Amino acid sequence: MPDLLIRNIHPMGLDAQDILIRDGRIAAIGTGLAAEGAEVVDGKGAIAIPALVDAHTHLDKTTWGMPWYKGRKGGDLQALIDNERNERRAIGLDVHRQSMRHAIRLVENGTGHIRSHVDVDTDHKLTLLEGKLRTRAALKDAVDIQIVAFPQSGLMVRPGTYELLDEALAMGADVVGGLDPSSMDRDPKGSLDAIFRLAGKHGKPVDIHLHEYGELGSFTLEEIIARTEALGMQGRVGVSHCFCLGMPDPLRVGQLMERVARADIRIFTTGHPSAEVPSLQAMRAAGIKVGMGCDGIRDTWGPWGQPDMLHRARIVGMKNRMRRDDELELLLDVASRGGAEAMGLEAPGLAIGGPGDLTLVAGETLAHAVVEEAPRPLVVKRGRVVARDGVLALAGVTMP
Amino acid sequence: MPDLLIRNIHPMGLDAQDILIRDGRIAAIGTGLAAEGAEVVDGKGAIAIPALVDAHTHLDKTTWGMPWYKGRKGGDLQALIDNERNERRAIGLDVHRQSMRHAIRLVENGTGHIRSHVDVDTDHKLTLLEGKLRTRAALKDAVDIQIVAFPQSGLMVRPGTYELLDEALAMGADVVGGLDPSSMDRDPKGSLDAIFRLAGKHGKPVDIHLHEYGELGSFTLEEIIARTEALGMQGRVGVSHCFCLGMPDPLRVGQLMERVARADIRIFTTGHPSAEVPSLQAMRAAGIKVGMGCDGIRDTWGPWGQPDMLHRARIVGMKNRMRRDDELELLLDVASRGGAEAMGLEAPGLAIGGPGDLTLVAGETLAHAVVEEAPRPLVVKRGRVVARDGVLALAGVTMP
Repeated sequence: MPDLLIRNIHPMGLDAQDILIRDGRIAAIGTGLAAEGAEVVDGKGAIAIPALVDAHTHLDKTTWGMPWYKGRKGGDLQALIDNERNERRAIGLDVHRQSMRHAIRLVENGTGHIRSHVDVDTDHKLTLLEGKLRTRAALKDAVDIQIVAFPQSGLMVRPGTYELLDEALAMGADVVGGLDPSSMDRDPKGSLDAIFRLAGKHGKPVDIHLHEYGELGSFTLEEIIARTEALGMQGRVGVSHCFCLGMPDPLRVGQLMERVARADIRIFTTGHPSAEVPSLQAMRAAGIKVGMGCDGIRDTWGPWGQPDMLHRARIVGMKNRMRRDDELELLLDVASRGGAEAMGLEAPGLAIGGPGDLTLVAGETLAHAVVEEAPRPLVVKRGRVVARDGVLALAGVTMP
Repeated sequence: MPDLLIRNIHPMGLDAQDILIRDGRIAAIGTGLAAEGAEVVDGKGAIAIPALVDAHTHLDKTTWGMPWYKGRKGGDLQALIDNERNERRAIGLDVHRQSMRHAIRLVENGTGHIRSHVDVDTDHKLTLLEGKLRTRAALKDAVDIQIVAFPQSGLMVRPGTYELLDEALAMGADVVGGLDPSSMDRDPKGSLDAIFRLAGKHGKPVDIHLHEYGELGSFTLEEIIARTEALGMQGRVGVSHCFCLGMPDPLRVGQLMERVARADIRIFTTGHPSAEVPSLQAMRAAGIKVGMGCDGIRDTWGPWGQPDMLHRARIVGMKNRMRRDDELELLLDVASRGGAEAMGLEAPGLAIGGPGDLTLVAGETLAHAVVEEAPRPLVVKRGRVVARDGVLALAGVTMP
């Protein structure tokens, strides 16, 4: 692959520079760069940021591009889970096609890394994982996809799920998932022991959905912290949502955040608009590594969302009462470099030697770029242009 | 003006029809309509809804289209108010130009009615109102703008403001505004008496910003209810935000909502993403007439928002945990017909004899139209096409 020379861009909104990417890594940053045989792209003075990172999504769930789904139900979490499991086949939700649509839109919007949970249950077995593995392979030049084997319908409450998770991890899933060990699995000890047993067996990290509120969530979180420390899993455990850290008890929340930071547990937030969520500013101040994700997009659960990390950053920012430029810059960091760090990846920073993953964004400043609704002018993965002006530009790959 | 015949549209998502608009009102709805000399437009099978209604915004505040504003501050409400009052001239915020930009984008996005608060204070006196009156006149064929004379910097705490409000109402402001009679004006009795005195003198309705939380807000709300009933102002008093109706005390909130409904006080919500807000579903169930607004857009207060009522409907819907189609249809009703009703206007319903204000929207169903991010194909005001495909199309008016 030829070198890529991007001329006239403003890395992180700073003075105009050129960036040269060679063998997938940033080889030079400076003015008036030249490289024989390089593909040269005019950045037209746009701001460059590291690739955006969707650290929590569900590529196997979206109905994007399908007929409008009218069957959404009310009710509790269990009702929504059951509805989805029962409706997947009825509405013809082909996981490979749908995850391609979802992931390609993320790429077109500047995303270079995705952590996607995939449902593993005794009805669908490993078919959803298979569809997503095909998508990962098809998009390997455009985006890195981490797959979490996720017991969406419960682990302890549906015998046979443990064995399926075990098989999923052997097949190529990267991370062991979990779901509300207390409120959904009704057996926090059994559920967490099983999750950490799988992590040990496969040598893979953990990422647990924790929707449990208040003291119940805090109890479960304490159990996660205890196992993380006892098993030496610091830096390899994530908790998604973690609504309990949003409870209105600053003292208790402060103590828990301190313990989360000490155990180096990563928190993945989606800024859920109608839930109590952990404060992004407080988590960062406590030293917690935080990622951000779009979560489900227009799926059987809900109609909301866009496959775009800047759209999600706006939701998270509004939720966290951010308004100043420095707060918007923090938001952008969590949606890119910080998210990569929280996922355990090399955290890019547009530095020489760093990964050649970046996106150009519209806007006069970094803060402006967060709120401006406009296509990304250019998206680059490992030194390869993968999208221009919001449209995929990758040979051999088309939007299904 | 010739008649307007719009062919092949789905009113409210129902079967395809034609709509004929004559003399600003809907003259016929049916299939195969014809009208000699009419301007004929092909609706291409899109869904038609009544004009969207922005029932709470601030056209005099936006920096839309100006250089990125970097001076946003943290701090409390008073700090934000002072920052704005002091910065208006420094950043060159020309109210006529900016309110044109804001209102035209609302029109392009299908808005037919706007209620806009305009700051009246002893620094800027009536200059902001003057700029907005020019905008109202310039856009009279495209959108109806109600102007609220709004003491943003306080009424009781800044002597001279009362007289300015009095003058503003004489000059053409339509509604008497107010701001947090307890927490900001520090004199709820004096503040409310002054507001209602102005309303009586000018025979105009009232719309009070009430950010006060919990019991303080409830106390102020009770005082508003008492004056509304004592003065026979039922149906002519609005409360914007009314965060106190979002407090986590269902019994107290239920009783207050019942009293608000009985006094026929209208509530205007913006679904503020980081505040406790009143439940839209609960307000409608209590029989309260509710409107929805975009509030400030990219102003000195905050960077968020879009001048688009469907964008705002999504924020309000997410905040209210809506997900089902019937919930999204309720949302759309509040953002259009319901908002007009709450503002005291003739509430359109795409019925023969009703106002010829409508917009076409993208999407297969009403619910889909709420979440689909796409330009409005056609916007019609009193039988005149004012925008096509998201761009103003009104002779003699251009985006400044």
